[in-house]
Amino acid sequence: MINAKSISTDLAALRANSPLVHNITNFVVMNNTANALLAIGASPVMAHAVEEVADMAGIASALVINIGTLNPLWVEGMIKAGIAATAKGIPVIFDPVGVGATPYRNEVATQIIEKCKPTLIRGNASEIMALAKENVATKGVDSTVSANAALDAAKNLAVETGAVVVISGAEDFITDGKQVLTIKNGSPLMPKVTGMGCTASAVLGAFAAINKNTLLAAAHGMAVMSICGEIAAKKSAGPGSLQMHFIDTLYNLSDKDIADLFIA
Amino acid sequence: MINAKSISTDLAALRANSPLVHNITNFVVMNNTANALLAIGASPVMAHAVEEVADMAGIASALVINIGTLNPLWVEGMIKAGIAATAKGIPVIFDPVGVGATPYRNEVATQIIEKCKPTLIRGNASEIMALAKENVATKGVDSTVSANAALDAAKNLAVETGAVVVISGAEDFITDGKQVLTIKNGSPLMPKVTGMGCTASAVLGAFAAINKNTLLAAAHGMAVMSICGEIAAKKSAGPGSLQMHFIDTLYNLSDKDIADLFIA
Amino acid sequence: MINAKSISTDLAALRANSPLVHNITNFVVMNNTANALLAIGASPVMAHAVEEVADMAGIASALVINIGTLNPLWVEGMIKAGIAATAKGIPVIFDPVGVGATPYRNEVATQIIEKCKPTLIRGNASEIMALAKENVATKGVDSTVSANAALDAAKNLAVETGAVVVISGAEDFITDGKQVLTIKNGSPLMPKVTGMGCTASAVLGAFAAINKNTLLAAAHGMAVMSICGEIAAKKSAGPGSLQMHFIDTLYNLSDKDIADLFIA
Repeated sequence: MINAKSISTDLAALRANSPLVHNITNFVVMNNTANALLAIGASPVMAHAVEEVADMAGIASALVINIGTLNPLWVEGMIKAGIAATAKGIPVIFDPVGVGATPYRNEVATQIIEKCKPTLIRGNASEIMALAKENVATKGVDSTVSANAALDAAKNLAVETGAVVVISGAEDFITDGKQVLTIKNGSPLMPKVTGMGCTASAVLGAFAAINKNTLLAAAHGMAVMSICGEIAAKKSAGPGSLQMHFIDTLYNLSDKDIADLFIA
Repeated sequence: MINAKSISTDLAALRANSPLVHNITNFVVMNNTANALLAIGASPVMAHAVEEVADMAGIASALVINIGTLNPLWVEGMIKAGIAATAKGIPVIFDPVGVGATPYRNEVATQIIEKCKPTLIRGNASEIMALAKENVATKGVDSTVSANAALDAAKNLAVETGAVVVISGAEDFITDGKQVLTIKNGSPLMPKVTGMGCTASAVLGAFAAINKNTLLAAAHGMAVMSICGEIAAKKSAGPGSLQMHFIDTLYNLSDKDIADLFIA
Repeated sequence: MINAKSISTDLAALRANSPLVHNITNFVVMNNTANALLAIGASPVMAHAVEEVADMAGIASALVINIGTLNPLWVEGMIKAGIAATAKGIPVIFDPVGVGATPYRNEVATQIIEKCKPTLIRGNASEIMALAKENVATKGVDSTVSANAALDAAKNLAVETGAVVVISGAEDFITDGKQVLTIKNGSPLMPKVTGMGCTASAVLGAFAAINKNTLLAAAHGMAVMSICGEIAAKKSAGPGSLQMHFIDTLYNLSDKDIADLFIA
């Protein structure tokens, strides 16, 4: 179902179509997110004002909502954009950064799921468990548990929300509540770069804009992230150089790289 | 009129004087903008609050207004700063990021031009055409047309506003409505780095602080950007490394580099 | 009192405990700040909304307040977080970016010191002199005087506020009003990277979370910053590559590096 060829096919379509991805994301990662989207072949736009989010979502091919540095004015923009995107029928990706860390984040995450009806939710294991109302220790925006500990929570969340749910970690899991796809590529250096998860969510937006099968689109996007992280980590002396090589690798990723490295 | 020597003269003056450039810019590019200004020899400051923008513009040598991630509170700060800067007689550079993409951006851009009376406007071809009220397809913040397609629009906009207008692209055009200067240096990898245009606008601010001939200042600034992009691209494996080498190149740019590479 | 071994001991404790550092900081440096904290072994979180700052400070081991791009809504969050952090007894680090440049920054800095009672204040020489109400020329966020010119001001500020005060510059000074520690490592290329001072303040937060002797924690943090800057600068062609190598160096810094390079 997912194999090196299916990944390459979506990547080629992404590069050929260069979908416009509208991001309402956090201050920490905006630069990297935009650069990752450009490098992979998409066209990023960042816009958060209530005055324009519906118009911007209206010309976009996917919307990515990320609550990393939320406040009420931004949340208002997120919800307005999400409603416009859902009405237009474009994919809405939700990245619940730090959910579980504060009551405010929990409340906003619940609101966004209810009102924006995301087609895809990506988080680390702690975040997915928090969203599924399971008891889990949180540590700010970092996960305290491994991805497979959150798999049942992810399945339940998928069934409850109708969204495809992605848990990223040493292994990544992608589920629609029934099927589970697994991506085994990656590098332990990746979580040492801030916002790699946020970048993943944005890249998933670009793939979801290209492939209407959201489960496959998400798996393809996570495979590209993980393969690029693996290639880049081999060239890197630490997280500083990983960030640079990662962007270069997204830009240069070849079908041969994918065929050589993808672990089914 | 513009030649390698005139570029070097302004660059030396910039490095000797280290002008304070006040930026009210977008969240995506603030870090790169500040680093580019430091690397070229200027002193950057970012401040957007209505409570302090007039004071900050009052100690600055140029003001750069960029609407990439605007909202009404920031726009209020932009306009207050622009009025203070114009009253003080320092150059005001306006970067109309994404104008044409939403009605809100169009309305804000019109207001900024009317109230802040920019001395220099820099955008990509789509943005300049949108500002000149010409029909043009937009794609978020990326241009859909080549720079020379916007040359008449740029001339009209310059006449109408009294500002020098810069269109950046594969070739850059700088016009006051009568004269047109052209910069042919650069690299096709530059638009793959987010915010290169925003960086250009900030660098133009630094040059405009040094040279009261805004047409020449703008041409010198665009030449430095394009030459540095060209040098950096040759050392780069992709947009990630370009971003790094570009900053290093701004810092190390020599008169010999300019003399060797500048294309008249 | 401070020596290579005491630095290494705190660094090992930091890496073993990975303290959660809550940052309310400016838009320019958020990405670098988060990456530096991850690289040194801490866990960063950024959250500024009044709705959640007290909860986030409540799970953190240190709070860093930085006014680089302040506005009234953010200041409200800073003060609420500072009060919560002080009540909980975790260290509060205050970075008064650009104080002295505008009356608004002066007023906010005074408020933060009064209400949040920081345990540690770090700034450049101009900022420390401005906080101590001494006459000093300011140039936006860059210092116009050398660090040792501000030493008396730093001592007075420490006595007046009860905070340890750090002046960073070519030499760094750390004082509680009585003792003065000096760090002589570093590189003149460091101030060419935007936000190196902001990164220092965040790293001090991580060290203060580990060592209750704030004077020593601050000296250890500044030593790590300066030694890493020195190592990274030797590998760098300019400020662009310094930023990358600096993060890699924080990640890889060894006891041997510290023993070889630390200048007592």
